[in-house]
Amino acid sequence: MNTFGERLRLTTFGESHGKALGGIIDGFPPGFKIDFNLLYKEVEKRRPGNSILVSARDEKDFPEFLSGISDDGFTLGTPIGFIIRNTDTQASDYRQMTHAFRPNHADYSYYKRYGISPQPGGGRASARETANWTVAGALCSQWLSSKNINIEAALVGVGDLEAKDVFEPFISADSKEFHLKIDSQLQRKFEELILEVKKNGDSVGGKVGCVITGLPPGIGNPVFDKLQSRLGAAMMSINAAKGFEYGIGFKAANAFGSATADMFISSKENNECIISTSSNFSGGIQGGISNGMPIYFSVAFKPTPTLLRDIPTVDMDGNKCEIKCQGRHDPCVAVRAVQVVKSMASLVIADFLV
Amino acid sequence: MNTFGERLRLTTFGESHGKALGGIIDGFPPGFKIDFNLLYKEVEKRRPGNSILVSARDEKDFPEFLSGISDDGFTLGTPIGFIIRNTDTQASDYRQMTHAFRPNHADYSYYKRYGISPQPGGGRASARETANWTVAGALCSQWLSSKNINIEAALVGVGDLEAKDVFEPFISADSKEFHLKIDSQLQRKFEELILEVKKNGDSVGGKVGCVITGLPPGIGNPVFDKLQSRLGAAMMSINAAKGFEYGIGFKAANAFGSATADMFISSKENNECIISTSSNFSGGIQGGISNGMPIYFSVAFKPTPTLLRDIPTVDMDGNKCEIKCQGRHDPCVAVRAVQVVKSMASLVIADFLV
Amino acid sequence: MNTFGERLRLTTFGESHGKALGGIIDGFPPGFKIDFNLLYKEVEKRRPGNSILVSARDEKDFPEFLSGISDDGFTLGTPIGFIIRNTDTQASDYRQMTHAFRPNHADYSYYKRYGISPQPGGGRASARETANWTVAGALCSQWLSSKNINIEAALVGVGDLEAKDVFEPFISADSKEFHLKIDSQLQRKFEELILEVKKNGDSVGGKVGCVITGLPPGIGNPVFDKLQSRLGAAMMSINAAKGFEYGIGFKAANAFGSATADMFISSKENNECIISTSSNFSGGIQGGISNGMPIYFSVAFKPTPTLLRDIPTVDMDGNKCEIKCQGRHDPCVAVRAVQVVKSMASLVIADFLV
Amino acid sequence: MNTFGERLRLTTFGESHGKALGGIIDGFPPGFKIDFNLLYKEVEKRRPGNSILVSARDEKDFPEFLSGISDDGFTLGTPIGFIIRNTDTQASDYRQMTHAFRPNHADYSYYKRYGISPQPGGGRASARETANWTVAGALCSQWLSSKNINIEAALVGVGDLEAKDVFEPFISADSKEFHLKIDSQLQRKFEELILEVKKNGDSVGGKVGCVITGLPPGIGNPVFDKLQSRLGAAMMSINAAKGFEYGIGFKAANAFGSATADMFISSKENNECIISTSSNFSGGIQGGISNGMPIYFSVAFKPTPTLLRDIPTVDMDGNKCEIKCQGRHDPCVAVRAVQVVKSMASLVIADFLV
Repeated sequence: MNTFGERLRLTTFGESHGKALGGIIDGFPPGFKIDFNLLYKEVEKRRPGNSILVSARDEKDFPEFLSGISDDGFTLGTPIGFIIRNTDTQASDYRQMTHAFRPNHADYSYYKRYGISPQPGGGRASARETANWTVAGALCSQWLSSKNINIEAALVGVGDLEAKDVFEPFISADSKEFHLKIDSQLQRKFEELILEVKKNGDSVGGKVGCVITGLPPGIGNPVFDKLQSRLGAAMMSINAAKGFEYGIGFKAANAFGSATADMFISSKENNECIISTSSNFSGGIQGGISNGMPIYFSVAFKPTPTLLRDIPTVDMDGNKCEIKCQGRHDPCVAVRAVQVVKSMASLVIADFLV
Repeated sequence: MNTFGERLRLTTFGESHGKALGGIIDGFPPGFKIDFNLLYKEVEKRRPGNSILVSARDEKDFPEFLSGISDDGFTLGTPIGFIIRNTDTQASDYRQMTHAFRPNHADYSYYKRYGISPQPGGGRASARETANWTVAGALCSQWLSSKNINIEAALVGVGDLEAKDVFEPFISADSKEFHLKIDSQLQRKFEELILEVKKNGDSVGGKVGCVITGLPPGIGNPVFDKLQSRLGAAMMSINAAKGFEYGIGFKAANAFGSATADMFISSKENNECIISTSSNFSGGIQGGISNGMPIYFSVAFKPTPTLLRDIPTVDMDGNKCEIKCQGRHDPCVAVRAVQVVKSMASLVIADFLV
Repeated sequence: MNTFGERLRLTTFGESHGKALGGIIDGFPPGFKIDFNLLYKEVEKRRPGNSILVSARDEKDFPEFLSGISDDGFTLGTPIGFIIRNTDTQASDYRQMTHAFRPNHADYSYYKRYGISPQPGGGRASARETANWTVAGALCSQWLSSKNINIEAALVGVGDLEAKDVFEPFISADSKEFHLKIDSQLQRKFEELILEVKKNGDSVGGKVGCVITGLPPGIGNPVFDKLQSRLGAAMMSINAAKGFEYGIGFKAANAFGSATADMFISSKENNECIISTSSNFSGGIQGGISNGMPIYFSVAFKPTPTLLRDIPTVDMDGNKCEIKCQGRHDPCVAVRAVQVVKSMASLVIADFLV
Repeated sequence: MNTFGERLRLTTFGESHGKALGGIIDGFPPGFKIDFNLLYKEVEKRRPGNSILVSARDEKDFPEFLSGISDDGFTLGTPIGFIIRNTDTQASDYRQMTHAFRPNHADYSYYKRYGISPQPGGGRASARETANWTVAGALCSQWLSSKNINIEAALVGVGDLEAKDVFEPFISADSKEFHLKIDSQLQRKFEELILEVKKNGDSVGGKVGCVITGLPPGIGNPVFDKLQSRLGAAMMSINAAKGFEYGIGFKAANAFGSATADMFISSKENNECIISTSSNFSGGIQGGISNGMPIYFSVAFKPTPTLLRDIPTVDMDGNKCEIKCQGRHDPCVAVRAVQVVKSMASLVIADFLV
């Protein structure tokens, strides 16, 4: 179904080439003053056409809010409806049977799921849907910031290039770091690699890191709805995501217990006893529930499936055919996924806190 | 909440040291003949005490089925209730305030979540809960097998040892392999490493691989409930899981699009046109929906947090104290997680198919 | 939350005096050709201003569909998003504290629920929301008609006037009646009474009857999600509804078992054995599940709370004040509720069948 | 599905003649001390065999609690699992095809729903299931009482006998009445009528009234999950329920707005301004949300379908046959429904408050 979340719920609609996208955010707390400038700035980050590193498709992606917010910008506690018009719509004919299945896209599996012919731009499977997520996510991250919970995401790897020690400050618990820091030289190398790949008409995978600071202990559940389970589900919902790991992640498989235990320590702050851990290999979650330490995780993204080449494939009748080279092309989807990772993390955390 | 699944739902109860565990499987199809011998054999695989490689705690873990099944072993379509008695129960006193927080366990976060003192054995956060999951999972995998859908899981890594090419047959789509094959020499090395770790009173992480064959195309959803999202959520629900990847997983972040595209091909079988892909880097899922190719994924598990040493920690008042060495100990939780991975995958797939 | 249904789900948004209403219909089957003329005609029936019997507020209420439907009018299986613009919007100020609580409206309870001042027109509690329901309901009833399931609703009582024997044809099971027939003379009396009440600036209650024919046996559930439970919840969701009864309803409390038993009989049709009942006191549902006989039920509606008089009340500080006479006024909300009852019944039945 | 509630959820299992019934109560707040004596007393009230007025089947119906409660009787915040053993189990054979459809029971519709032969005692459709509900309801009503929210239910009508003015004290808002008072002479007449009906081997319908006092204003929702919608769904889930009305109920259909408006008034109590209404025709709910006044409603129950006579019917092949007179018999199910009404109301209210 097209609903995400339990108590704070985002329900969305919209096909890639339809009239509009949009969604309903249900369960957002009343009385919160929205900073629309900040919101539009966040939404802007995901938008195609905002950088030479991403697809040239230029869409404004600005949401029109239709309900749930008073004229003076306060939330009403009622569902927040919004729409994002598609500026270049394109006909979709249900009976049209000529499309070929684009390799590595959802065309074939979607056809098997719904029994309808491949939709222009991928229909509902298009990453354009994530524009809805960033609208809802930007609202949630504002609200979380007002509670001193901050979520940051950054591109931490492109192809063979990788920021290896980006989570170090969050593992060594004595640091009070709140920001994901990527070496500026590495960032330039990321950009150079992406531009080179773009020139070749190829695409390259990437990795996004994310850190959540300020979350109080006690958030999550011990069994099915573990905090990491919800985060994992959210991240694996993002188009092109192939893997999720939190804390020391896959390295945990190689580790010894004696070397990766996080010891409980206590300190006094304002006469209050604060319990924390001396290290944070766990990544801020124990038994599915936050322990007050920073939460950090990574998401791997595959290279975009659209290549600037003619590609052989088959059509709905199984006949061989060719997909013609397309003009628009995203050489590294992980670039735009950064904002989507942040948005989905915001939705998950806000859902636990409302 | 303590419910997993949408249309086929498992709701569970039970604390580690309470009277009993149990669950209700709701939505299981009527008229399916259960093979109880097979079921008990599957449940047995997860059980502690069934091998020198795992914890010595000897529990029978045999479920008593209370409803939803006729006397002659057919499902009735009604909820299947079952309980598993705990054979060595131990008092839990709500007001008891003396427990210390065990490092790397859920004790502290659980306390912050529920406001109650750490429960013996971790209460609801104990991996004993997964006994419930294997009961439900074993029912589902039987039912899936009757539809020629097979799910296999295996230990593919322990510490630095790893079966590198275990998914190769499923990537090269011309193979008709259905089984996860682990080199027997490597398996012996796994065992040796675990025994050595056990002798040292330490613990080690591991990795579990899983493959799903026979799933028809068209299963999943294009947006939030993507098949990989549900699988990811299920796997990240398992105690000690730190990462999930499917298809080429984290390697996708390093890959080029030109080298990892799965091309659609068609063939005739019994006069029917079969569409498949020439390779399977995607891991059987495209746009959140199965494409008919094998699904394969890995889950990383951290070393068990229980060590055979005295460990310094703090108690509920923040006072320093020490956790005494315990007699029972799981040197590599990934060993028992193999059956849990299979069970959760079975629950996810069956949920989509009922 | 603002979602109705389990597998076919309507999620809505929109305040009475906001920019727009709208909703997302999720789970509607793909490949269904929509008859938009019929749809608009159905939606029209609920609209204020379409008769002298109802409120004079003239709103077009025509939905704009934004997704889920192809250019040639076929459903795509994806969520159907729609909006209905409010033509006369009015400012809503979150901090405004001057409104008085209108008696018998949701103003006070809504204020206690959300902690915000009474909203113009009742905000989310306004019956204007039911415009969303009739859009979704009209889609569902078209789809049900294509499966020979027909749902009819009619005004069966106004004040002391009541069509006593309107369900007789559905109780005596030998009739093959499909339509709710109201005596035309009685209908005129209903209208006369409503006009008289309107002249007096008063309002009057009413009763709506509904019958569902063509539903196959086996629809529903034996425990919590009984068919009558879902229908009852749907009807009690309608603004101003005060009671729901199905089958012989409240008269069952006065009846003897020997006089109201529905006996099973069988007949042959096209060599197939058809099982039905000799009478239908049960109202087509037994043990929460349809038995193939017509389902019939009634819903009682209270008089509209808006009167054409100055009314004493209190404001948010508890100070006495007066609500001024308003120009628009619905003398008998049951008139417009007829279409809403039909719509909600369509949503419930379609939800069970998708 | 077999789950009731949103945040406080009861999931149940068990067929009438199976090994056991039981359920899982998920979401119950931690730290509540259970009074087991009171709980068993409440459960006892629904039990068959506890009065000459009801069925002679003697079952202890005492639940065994398996989890979620500490040894000293405090809730742990974790799911509360319980089972109730059936003391006289009886074989159920999935393939057995000889049963006839009992008239007015769920046998035929259940068969069409699940495709399996009629189950002994109605299987899952048996009212025995309500034993589960009273266990969960008794826990909830204890918890509500600790918050000064009291729920009372009583038999207010049997056949033609009816306590007409039972809700008067709750409509005239100046009364501070908390109890449903039934005239003792009328109660005797109820009993006489039931005994007479029993002697005749017949059965008779009845009506149950319920009142909820102490609920603070602001509980409920303005759209789909209206408080009356949840209560209506809960009541219509009870076996044999045919109608639900709240506030002035069906009489609202006959009423004028000018005569049934509840005016807001304010008073000072301990320097705090208390807003209430001068009358309570609304029944304590406005716009789907409680307004702080008492909530009162009625539920109509049909006569039990089991008669002490041989009854003609048909079997699964459509052949005529006869149901033999059975020894056990409930002359007026409304008697036992009193406790079930209270239990379901408790579950609904607690679900909103946790």
